[in-house]
Amino acid sequence: MDTVRIETDSMGEVDVQRDRYWGAQTERSLHHFAIGVERFRWQRPMIRALGLLKRAAAEANVALGELPPDIGALIVRAADEVIEGKLDAHFPLVVFQTGSGTQSNMNANEVIANRAIEMAGGTLGSKHPVHPNDHVNRGQSSNDTFPTAMHLAVVAELDQRLFPAVTRLRDTLAARAAAFSDVVKTGRTHLQDATPVTLGQEIGAWVSQIDFGIAGVRAALPGLYSLAIGGTAVGTGLNAHPRFGASTAARLAELTAHPFVSGADLFFALAAHDALVQTSAALRTLAGGLMKMANDVRWLASGPRCGIGELRIPENEPGSSIMPGKVNPTQCEALTMVCAQVFGNDATVAFAGTQGNFQLNVYKPVMAHNVLESIALLADACDAFERHCARGIEPDLERISKHLDANLMLVTALNRHIGYDNAAAIAKHAHREGLSLREAAIASGKVSAEDYDRWVVPADMTLASAEDEVTPR
Amino acid sequence: MDTVRIETDSMGEVDVQRDRYWGAQTERSLHHFAIGVERFRWQRPMIRALGLLKRAAAEANVALGELPPDIGALIVRAADEVIEGKLDAHFPLVVFQTGSGTQSNMNANEVIANRAIEMAGGTLGSKHPVHPNDHVNRGQSSNDTFPTAMHLAVVAELDQRLFPAVTRLRDTLAARAAAFSDVVKTGRTHLQDATPVTLGQEIGAWVSQIDFGIAGVRAALPGLYSLAIGGTAVGTGLNAHPRFGASTAARLAELTAHPFVSGADLFFALAAHDALVQTSAALRTLAGGLMKMANDVRWLASGPRCGIGELRIPENEPGSSIMPGKVNPTQCEALTMVCAQVFGNDATVAFAGTQGNFQLNVYKPVMAHNVLESIALLADACDAFERHCARGIEPDLERISKHLDANLMLVTALNRHIGYDNAAAIAKHAHREGLSLREAAIASGKVSAEDYDRWVVPADMTLASAEDEVTPR
Amino acid sequence: MDTVRIETDSMGEVDVQRDRYWGAQTERSLHHFAIGVERFRWQRPMIRALGLLKRAAAEANVALGELPPDIGALIVRAADEVIEGKLDAHFPLVVFQTGSGTQSNMNANEVIANRAIEMAGGTLGSKHPVHPNDHVNRGQSSNDTFPTAMHLAVVAELDQRLFPAVTRLRDTLAARAAAFSDVVKTGRTHLQDATPVTLGQEIGAWVSQIDFGIAGVRAALPGLYSLAIGGTAVGTGLNAHPRFGASTAARLAELTAHPFVSGADLFFALAAHDALVQTSAALRTLAGGLMKMANDVRWLASGPRCGIGELRIPENEPGSSIMPGKVNPTQCEALTMVCAQVFGNDATVAFAGTQGNFQLNVYKPVMAHNVLESIALLADACDAFERHCARGIEPDLERISKHLDANLMLVTALNRHIGYDNAAAIAKHAHREGLSLREAAIASGKVSAEDYDRWVVPADMTLASAEDEVTPR
Amino acid sequence: MDTVRIETDSMGEVDVQRDRYWGAQTERSLHHFAIGVERFRWQRPMIRALGLLKRAAAEANVALGELPPDIGALIVRAADEVIEGKLDAHFPLVVFQTGSGTQSNMNANEVIANRAIEMAGGTLGSKHPVHPNDHVNRGQSSNDTFPTAMHLAVVAELDQRLFPAVTRLRDTLAARAAAFSDVVKTGRTHLQDATPVTLGQEIGAWVSQIDFGIAGVRAALPGLYSLAIGGTAVGTGLNAHPRFGASTAARLAELTAHPFVSGADLFFALAAHDALVQTSAALRTLAGGLMKMANDVRWLASGPRCGIGELRIPENEPGSSIMPGKVNPTQCEALTMVCAQVFGNDATVAFAGTQGNFQLNVYKPVMAHNVLESIALLADACDAFERHCARGIEPDLERISKHLDANLMLVTALNRHIGYDNAAAIAKHAHREGLSLREAAIASGKVSAEDYDRWVVPADMTLASAEDEVTPR
Repeated sequence: MDTVRIETDSMGEVDVQRDRYWGAQTERSLHHFAIGVERFRWQRPMIRALGLLKRAAAEANVALGELPPDIGALIVRAADEVIEGKLDAHFPLVVFQTGSGTQSNMNANEVIANRAIEMAGGTLGSKHPVHPNDHVNRGQSSNDTFPTAMHLAVVAELDQRLFPAVTRLRDTLAARAAAFSDVVKTGRTHLQDATPVTLGQEIGAWVSQIDFGIAGVRAALPGLYSLAIGGTAVGTGLNAHPRFGASTAARLAELTAHPFVSGADLFFALAAHDALVQTSAALRTLAGGLMKMANDVRWLASGPRCGIGELRIPENEPGSSIMPGKVNPTQCEALTMVCAQVFGNDATVAFAGTQGNFQLNVYKPVMAHNVLESIALLADACDAFERHCARGIEPDLERISKHLDANLMLVTALNRHIGYDNAAAIAKHAHREGLSLREAAIASGKVSAEDYDRWVVPADMTLASAEDEVTPR
Repeated sequence: MDTVRIETDSMGEVDVQRDRYWGAQTERSLHHFAIGVERFRWQRPMIRALGLLKRAAAEANVALGELPPDIGALIVRAADEVIEGKLDAHFPLVVFQTGSGTQSNMNANEVIANRAIEMAGGTLGSKHPVHPNDHVNRGQSSNDTFPTAMHLAVVAELDQRLFPAVTRLRDTLAARAAAFSDVVKTGRTHLQDATPVTLGQEIGAWVSQIDFGIAGVRAALPGLYSLAIGGTAVGTGLNAHPRFGASTAARLAELTAHPFVSGADLFFALAAHDALVQTSAALRTLAGGLMKMANDVRWLASGPRCGIGELRIPENEPGSSIMPGKVNPTQCEALTMVCAQVFGNDATVAFAGTQGNFQLNVYKPVMAHNVLESIALLADACDAFERHCARGIEPDLERISKHLDANLMLVTALNRHIGYDNAAAIAKHAHREGLSLREAAIASGKVSAEDYDRWVVPADMTLASAEDEVTPR
Repeated sequence: MDTVRIETDSMGEVDVQRDRYWGAQTERSLHHFAIGVERFRWQRPMIRALGLLKRAAAEANVALGELPPDIGALIVRAADEVIEGKLDAHFPLVVFQTGSGTQSNMNANEVIANRAIEMAGGTLGSKHPVHPNDHVNRGQSSNDTFPTAMHLAVVAELDQRLFPAVTRLRDTLAARAAAFSDVVKTGRTHLQDATPVTLGQEIGAWVSQIDFGIAGVRAALPGLYSLAIGGTAVGTGLNAHPRFGASTAARLAELTAHPFVSGADLFFALAAHDALVQTSAALRTLAGGLMKMANDVRWLASGPRCGIGELRIPENEPGSSIMPGKVNPTQCEALTMVCAQVFGNDATVAFAGTQGNFQLNVYKPVMAHNVLESIALLADACDAFERHCARGIEPDLERISKHLDANLMLVTALNRHIGYDNAAAIAKHAHREGLSLREAAIASGKVSAEDYDRWVVPADMTLASAEDEVTPR
Repeated sequence: MDTVRIETDSMGEVDVQRDRYWGAQTERSLHHFAIGVERFRWQRPMIRALGLLKRAAAEANVALGELPPDIGALIVRAADEVIEGKLDAHFPLVVFQTGSGTQSNMNANEVIANRAIEMAGGTLGSKHPVHPNDHVNRGQSSNDTFPTAMHLAVVAELDQRLFPAVTRLRDTLAARAAAFSDVVKTGRTHLQDATPVTLGQEIGAWVSQIDFGIAGVRAALPGLYSLAIGGTAVGTGLNAHPRFGASTAARLAELTAHPFVSGADLFFALAAHDALVQTSAALRTLAGGLMKMANDVRWLASGPRCGIGELRIPENEPGSSIMPGKVNPTQCEALTMVCAQVFGNDATVAFAGTQGNFQLNVYKPVMAHNVLESIALLADACDAFERHCARGIEPDLERISKHLDANLMLVTALNRHIGYDNAAAIAKHAHREGLSLREAAIASGKVSAEDYDRWVVPADMTLASAEDEVTPR
C-alpha cells in the first residue's frame, strides 16, 4: 500500500503522508518553510485556539443557516479532537510562514475536514462531504481567524498559566513580608547605607511592584477580548453572514467563559495587533518588576561572608563545579534571564506591530509566538522561583542587627532636632574616625546621651509617625 | 564688586555667580556633570513641576504646623515664580547627574530659598530666614520629591500637549474618513490586491488604532496620579509629618486639577517607576499606530505615476534638490522618524526601569527625560502632520477607479456562488491571460454575464450584508 | 529491577533514572528548573561544543601530566560520543538554569564520566574510575568552560550554517543582478518616482548590503576565537595547570580548524561576553539588510494589478483561504518575521551583556541561546528565501516599461541644460495637466523636440557619464 | 526698512527675515516642522560637516571644469565660514524634517549661496551670481550629500571627542590596575564569595572590556570612510561629473586627514546606512562595558558600613537632601544613565536602519542624530567619570583584608590535594558552624595545619602557577 495519498488545492496536486490528516497547503508550507523546525512548531495554545475557533464558527454558521447541520456537527466533533490535543501531531507548521498565518489556518481547516471526512466514512483528500475552505473555513479568512486564535490563545495562557503562577509568587512574598514585619534593618539607597526599614516593608515593595505588573497585564485583557472574527479578508466581512462575527464570538465566550466579542472596528483588528503589543509591553513591565525583586534577593543574600548577607535563600544544588561548598542564587539567575528574554520578545512584538500595511499586518505569527513564549517563561520561572526560592527566604538576624548598629544614616533622626548641617557634621566625623554614631553625636556637644537614645530608635524610624514635641525652626 | 558670592553646604564653601539664585550643591553639580550640556538641561515641564511641588509642600507643612506661616508664605511666593517660568535661567542642571535627581531637587531648594531670602530682604547664601534643606525641603527627600515631580510633569505634558495634539489629528482623520465613506477602492493585504474597501473604512482603521493608542496612554494616568511624596528617604516617611504626603498630594490636586494622591506603598514609589515604564510603553504603542498610518499615507500617495497614487497629499515644499518638481511625503517622514525615536526612548526607559536596587531606583532623571521627550515629540509631530498633511488628504478618484476595475480579487464575491476552487481558477485564468475578471468569469462557463453583474458589485463587497438567496452547499 | 540508581554530589544523594548517564547535579537542575522545557532544551550546537571542549581538555591535561593517560583516553572516547550526537538524550537541561551554565557543564561532566565508567566496566554513579569533577572537569570551572563552549558553538554555527546560507542567497541575487543589468526602470526615492536605475543596480544594492552584513559578522570572529578556558573560577586559572588554557585552545583549534586561542585577559573572558554582544549586533545589522531587501522584493512584486508589479516572484502556495487565486510574497514575510525575531534576540543579548558583576556575568545561557537561535533562523530563512523566491525573481518588462515612460523625473536630465528652476516648471506642468514629460518640455519653449530626445535617454541616465558638451553656467 | 526679504524656490515666493542667510526652502521647513525645536536643532558636528562637504564639492567641480573658478572660490569662502561656526545661527532646522535631510542640505546651499552673493556684492535671494542648486549643490543631491555629511560628522566626533575621552578613562583605570596589582582580595561570582583575585586583575578586566569596546567602534571606521557622494539622486551619479564623487572624497580626505573615499556601491550608500547601524551597535557594546565597570565600582564602594566597601571613591557632593553625611556614587549613576540612553538611541538607529525602500532610506536625520548624541554623551560622561571618580579610586585595605580572611572559598585551593568532595565538606562545615576555614580544615582530619598554611595562600591563588608536587589522582 502507498504511504502517500494525493491532496489538491487551487495550485494542483501534492503528495501527503497517508497517516496525516493535513492537506495540500500544509504540505506545501512544510516544504517551503523549513525554518527553525525543531523549536518553532506551534504548540498547544495556538492549536487548541484554532480548534476552538473552528468549532465556534461551525456552530455559528449552522445557527445562521450558513452550514448544513450535519456538516456542522462533523466539524464540531473533529474540532473537539483538535481542542483536546488528540491531533497535535497533525499540526507540523512553524511560526515562520506566511505572515497572516494562512498556512496554519489552512492546516486547521484541512485537518478538521479530513478528520470529519473520516468520521463520515469518506475518502481523505476528497473534500467531501466536508470541504476545508467552503465548510470549515466558511465565512472566514486567515486574516480574521488567525488573529482571533491569537487572542484566544493568549487569553487562555494568561488565565491558566501566568496569573496563577505570578499570584502564587506574590502571595508567598506577601506572607514573607508579613512574617518579617518587625525585622528592622538597614535601608539602602544608591547602594549606600540609608535610614532603616523593616524587612516586611522591603519585601512589601516587591509585592506592590508585582501587583502593579499583574494589574497592567490584566488591563490588556479587554483589548484581547475583542476579536477579529467576522472581518474575513479585509475587514468588510465579505462572504460571511453579517451576524457571523458576533455569533462566533458569543459562542467562544460560552466555550471559554471569557467575555469575547467581535471587534468594534474589524479593519483595525486585521491591520494591527496593538492588543498584543500592549500585552507584550505589560509583560515586559511585569518582568522588570520581577527582575528588580530577584536582583534584590540575590544582593541581600550575597556573601555569605563578604557580601551583604542579610537574607538566606534555599540551597538547592551545589553552586560551583570548582569551588566546593559554594551555593549560588540560581533561581534568581534563571528568573532574571527569563526577564531578559521577555524584554527581547517584546522588542520583536513591538517592532512587528509597526509593520502593517493597508488592510493587514503580516507579522501575526511572530507576534503571537513571542507573546505566548513570554507568558510561558514568566509563568514557569515564577513557579520555580516561588517553590525553590521565595518560600525559603529567611533573614540572617545576626547580620541584620550588626549592620543596623553600624549604620551612620541613623543620624537622619537628628535632623529635626539639630538641623541638617549639624547632623551631617556628626555623621562625617563618625565616618572619618571610625566611631559609632552615638559616640560622634555625643562628642559633638549637640546631643546628650539621653537625647540620642530617645531620638535615635531604628524601629521608630520605620514608622511614619509625628513627633509632636518638635517645633519647626 | 565681586561677581561671585560664597555659598555653603555640608561639604564646605563654593563660589557661585552673584546673579544666580542657586547654591553650593547646584554649583558642584554644574562642575561635576558637564554631560550633554547643550541639549540635556531640564526644560519647563520638570522645572515647573518642582516649583509646584515645593509650593504644595510648603503649604502642607504650614497647615500641619511643621513650618512657620511666614516662612511658608515666602516659599510659596518664590515657588510661584518657578512655576511661572521666571526663574528658568537658574536651573542649569542636566539630566545626567545623580540618579535620584538629588541635585535638581537641591537646585529647586536653593533657588527658592535664595529668592525667598531676597524677598525677605536677607542675604543670599545665608540660608536665613529660609533654609533650603530645613525649610524648602522640609519633610522631603530627593527620593520622594523628584519622582513626584516626574509624575507631575508627565501628567501635565500628557494633558496639555499630547492629548490635544493627538486628538486633533484623530478628529481630522475621522472627518476625512466620513468624507470618503463612499469612495470604494481596492483593499490590499500582503501588499497584494484584495477585495474592496471604502476609503472611509481604510482611514477609519487608522482612527481606531490611534484611539486604541490614546486609550492606552490614558490607562497609565492612574499610576501617574500616585505620588511618592511622603516617603522621604526610603519610603518610611522619616522626618515628615505623617500626614505630609497626603496633604501635599491633596494640595497638588487642587493646584493642578488632577486627582493626585500619595501612593499606597511609598517604598514601591521610590524603588521603581513602573508608572513611567507603563506610560512609555503606551506612548510606544501609540507611536506604532501613528507609524502604520503614516506609512499607509505615503504608500497610498506613492507615485505620482509609478506607484499606487490613490491619495494626494499637500505639496508643502520642493521635494528634491536635484529632481525638479518632485514632491515628497515629508510629513510622513518626520512623523515616522519621531516614532522611531519614541521606540528608542522607550527602550531606555524600560531598561532603566529594571535597574533599581533595594529602596531606590537611581535612573530617575533619564526615565523622566525620555518620557517627556517622547510626549513632546509625538505632540509636535502630530500637530505638524495634522496641519500640513492630514487635513489635505484627497483621493485621486480616477486612479482609484482604474485600480478597482482591474482588481482580480473581486472574484471573492463568487466564492459563495460557485465555490472557492472554481473562483480561484477564474482569477488565475484572468491573471495569466491578461483578461478582465468579468471576461474570465464568463469564459469559464460557471457564471453568466447577468450573474456576474449582479454578484460582483464592489460597493456591495464593502458591506457586511447577508445574501439570503445563497444556499449553503 | 529498580528503574533508578543513586547518584551523589556534595549535597547528598539523588535518584536518577537507570537508563540515563547523567548524575546528581543534572537531576537536581531538572527538578528545580522546569522552565520552558518543551522549547528551551539545549540543542546540538551547545552539546557538541561541550563534548569538544571536554575532549580537548582531557587531552591537554594528559599532555601536561595532569591526568593519567588511561583516564584521559576514556574521557576522550565518551566525549566523542557526545560530539557525534549519540548522547543527546542525556542532555535534558534547559537554558534557564544557573547563569554560569554550571548545571550544563556538570551535565557534560556527569554524562561523560558515567559513560566512561561504563566503558571501563565500572558502576554508574560510583565516580570511579572517572570522576566528573576531579577528572572530566579537571583544571576547569563552569565559569570558563561554559563561555568556551558558547564560542565554540557560535563559531561552528556561523561557519556551517550562516555563512553558507547567506552566501548562497547573495550569490543568487548577484546572478539576478547581472542578468538584469540592462533592464532600465524607474528609480524610487521617498516612495516617489525618481530618475532611472537598472534592475541590476537595484538588486546589486541588496547584494552590497548583504555583503556588508556578512563582513560585519565575520569581523566578530576574532573575538569569538578568544576562549575563556584556563581562567577557571574567577580568571586566575586556579587549580589549572598554567599551560592548560593555551593547550586546550590549541587542541580545539586542531579539532575544529578554527584558530581558537586562550584569551589574553581571562578575567574579562568570564566577566563579560562582549564578543557575543558584537556577534549579535552584527547579526542584527545583517537582518536589517535582509529585511530591506525582502521589503523591496515584495513592494516591487506588489499588485499584481494595483501595486507596483515590476517583479514577479514564484507562486509557491495559494495565498488566501478566502480570495481565490491570490498569490502572496510569503517568503518575504517569513524572512522579515525572522528579522524581527533577530532584533528581539539581540535586545536580549545586549541587555544581558550589561548585567555582569565583578568576576562573572551570569546571563551566559540566555546569551548563547539567543545568538545561536538568530544564526539558525537567519540561515534557515535565507535558505528558504533563496530556493523559493530569489532564484525565481523575474522582471515584468511590460510594466517596467510602462512606468518608465510615464516617469516625470526623467526631467532631471534637463537640469544641466536648462537649469533646475526651468526643469521644475516643466515637470510640474506635466503633472498638473496630465501631459507626458516630452509634451510639457516642448510646450515650455525651453527645449526642442530634438534636444529632448537627445538629452532624455533613460538608459543613459543610469550611467555616471560626463556630458562634455555642457558648459557650466 | 523691511525686516524681511523675498526668497523664491520652485514653489514660489517666501518671506525670510532680512538678517538671515537662508532661503525659501529653509523657511518652508521652519514653518512645517516645528517638532522639538528647543532640543533638536542640528548642532556643530552636522553643520560643520555640511560646510566641509560643500567646500570640497566646489573645489572638485572647479577642478573638473564643472564650475567657474570664481564661483567656486566664492563658495569655498562662504563654506569656510560654515565650517568655522560663524554661520551656525543660520542653520535653524531640526532633526525631524524630510527623511533624506533635503531641507538641511538646501539650508546649507541657501546659506552658502547667499553669503557668497553677499561677498560678491550681489543681492540676497537673487541666486546671482551663486545659485544654491545649480552651483552650490552642483553634481549633488540631498540623497548623497546628507549621508556624506553624516559620515563626516560621525568620524570627526569619534576622532575628536569619543576616542580621546574613552582612552583617557581606560588609561586612568589601567594606571589604577597597575597601582593595585598586589592588593589581594576576595573574588566574587554569582555575587557570592569566590576565590581571590588582585584588585589589579579586577580593574584590569574593566580595561580589557573598554579596549574591546573601543576596538569595536574603530572597526566601524572603514564603513564610515566610504561616502555616498557621487551617487546624486538614486546612486547613478546622474548630473554629476563621473569623477566628481571620487574627487570630492579625495578633497575631503585632504581637508580632514581621514581616508575618505567614494563608496564602492553608491546605490547601497543611499538606500541603507549600515555603517551607522554598525557604529551605533559598537557604541552600545562600549556602553555595556562602561555600565558593567560603573556598576562594579559602585557595588565595591557600597556601604560605607553595610555594603561591600572595598573601594573608596571621591566625595564630590553631598549625597542626600535628607540623610546628612551620605556620599553617593553619583558619577557611576550619571554614566550608567548615559549607557541606558545609548541603548535607546541604538534601538532607534537600528530600527530606522531597516526601513529603507528602493533607492533611499528616509530616516537619515534621526539616525545621524542618535549616533552623534551617543558619541557626545559617552565622551562627556567618560570625561566626567575619569576626572571625578576613576582617578580617585582607592582600596579600603582594612576591609579588603577582613573579607579575604573570612572567605570560605579559599577552600578551592584544597581541591587538588584532597579532592572536590572533601573540600566541599570542609567549607560547608565551616559555614554551618561559623568556623574559620582553617579551623574546619584541620578539624576534618584531611589536612594538617602545616599543609593548610602551605596550600592556602590567597596571593598564590591569584597566580596561574603549576603546583608540581601534585600528582593527578
